[in-house]
Amino acid sequence: MEVLVPFSTDRPKSRLSAVLAPDERAAFALAALRDVLDAIDEAGGEPRVLATGTVDADLPCPVTVDDRPLTEAVNGALDARLKGGGADGDAAERVAVVMADLALATPDALRELFAAGREADLALAPGRGGGTNAFVASHPEFRVDYHGASYLDHRRIAAEIGAGVAVVDSHRLATDIDEPADLAELLIHAEANAADGGSDGGEKRASRWLRDAGFALDTTDGRVGVERE
Amino acid sequence: MEVLVPFSTDRPKSRLSAVLAPDERAAFALAALRDVLDAIDEAGGEPRVLATGTVDADLPCPVTVDDRPLTEAVNGALDARLKGGGADGDAAERVAVVMADLALATPDALRELFAAGREADLALAPGRGGGTNAFVASHPEFRVDYHGASYLDHRRIAAEIGAGVAVVDSHRLATDIDEPADLAELLIHAEANAADGGSDGGEKRASRWLRDAGFALDTTDGRVGVERE
Repeated sequence: MEVLVPFSTDRPKSRLSAVLAPDERAAFALAALRDVLDAIDEAGGEPRVLATGTVDADLPCPVTVDDRPLTEAVNGALDARLKGGGADGDAAERVAVVMADLALATPDALRELFAAGREADLALAPGRGGGTNAFVASHPEFRVDYHGASYLDHRRIAAEIGAGVAVVDSHRLATDIDEPADLAELLIHAEANAADGGSDGGEKRASRWLRDAGFALDTTDGRVGVERE
Repeated sequence: MEVLVPFSTDRPKSRLSAVLAPDERAAFALAALRDVLDAIDEAGGEPRVLATGTVDADLPCPVTVDDRPLTEAVNGALDARLKGGGADGDAAERVAVVMADLALATPDALRELFAAGREADLALAPGRGGGTNAFVASHPEFRVDYHGASYLDHRRIAAEIGAGVAVVDSHRLATDIDEPADLAELLIHAEANAADGGSDGGEKRASRWLRDAGFALDTTDGRVGVERE
């Protein structure tokens, strides 16, 4: 199935500004995007980046540029696909949307999402904090609203249109890399994977980028955070 | 299988002291414990509370009091069960340990953990921040170390003793209710469940306790937090 990956080319990852300079945030966001695209591909999805502007990088999949805000751009894409408004006039059976900052996403977690989306009208992967980090929709009336606690809004929208919902319970899909504490999460799981010889596959680009930039886990105050050398 | 639930009766949930008074923290921790015990029971486990002191409540399962720190108490319990050091001299095939503050845990999430623990020598459910929120061990040499990023330590210990590891990817098991932001997580999922008539079952005690204490979701600053009336 087609998997849209919204990606902001202007001011990406602004909540990381306390620990990363603007050009670093752009490089890190691009590394995370590539990891997400790889995981989608490995899970059998067909990724397409839905970018707010031109992406200055050689990506392994098509890119559609739509400079509208996230909600409008995604709803435009859903209109075109689920209602047969696409170029060939045929409606897609279903479409997935996966956020570009899910750097912890594994093919296994995405396979579970895609499988849930083949069974239900709407499969939702809630994010920590009430966002909607990924979904698969086949109900032609479903539209998104990413403002506020979008997971709750999407459950309500589904109830209003009579769409059956499946919820995917995944820590990897729930963790968008949004603020400094999330960087620790990325390093923890990269280190866990390295501990047993890389059963999750080779090290991902985003965590390697962080390590190359001098970030390391910091457990000195009893909680796990990051420090930068 | 037997499922041990460590529970601290002294100074429970101290990281919530900014939003809850000591007696409130005790009442909330007890509500969360009861939710966890119910979910374990519904998932087919046999819960036993491993408490640091006498629990002043009528719980639906046996309680063992062990006033040692968490790591020592859990290792004592693993010694007694996995090495045949119990009263009847027989070793248990496997034992599970589930933290008492996993108020988001559902029977489905725990069934997945228990199933993984029947296949692997060690099934781990990592917590956000690198903790070990739940595990099932059948390898007789496995022992815990809850200091620091225990998930990483437990992966290393497993590698050292040659225990095969399964990792359970669950947002519900990854979310221990530890600090104020976690209260929002509890209210979000309670509200999501209510939105479609309670497909996850009736409202849990911990989220109802929070609502009765005046807590509600607050989305005014763009992120989802809690406010108290």
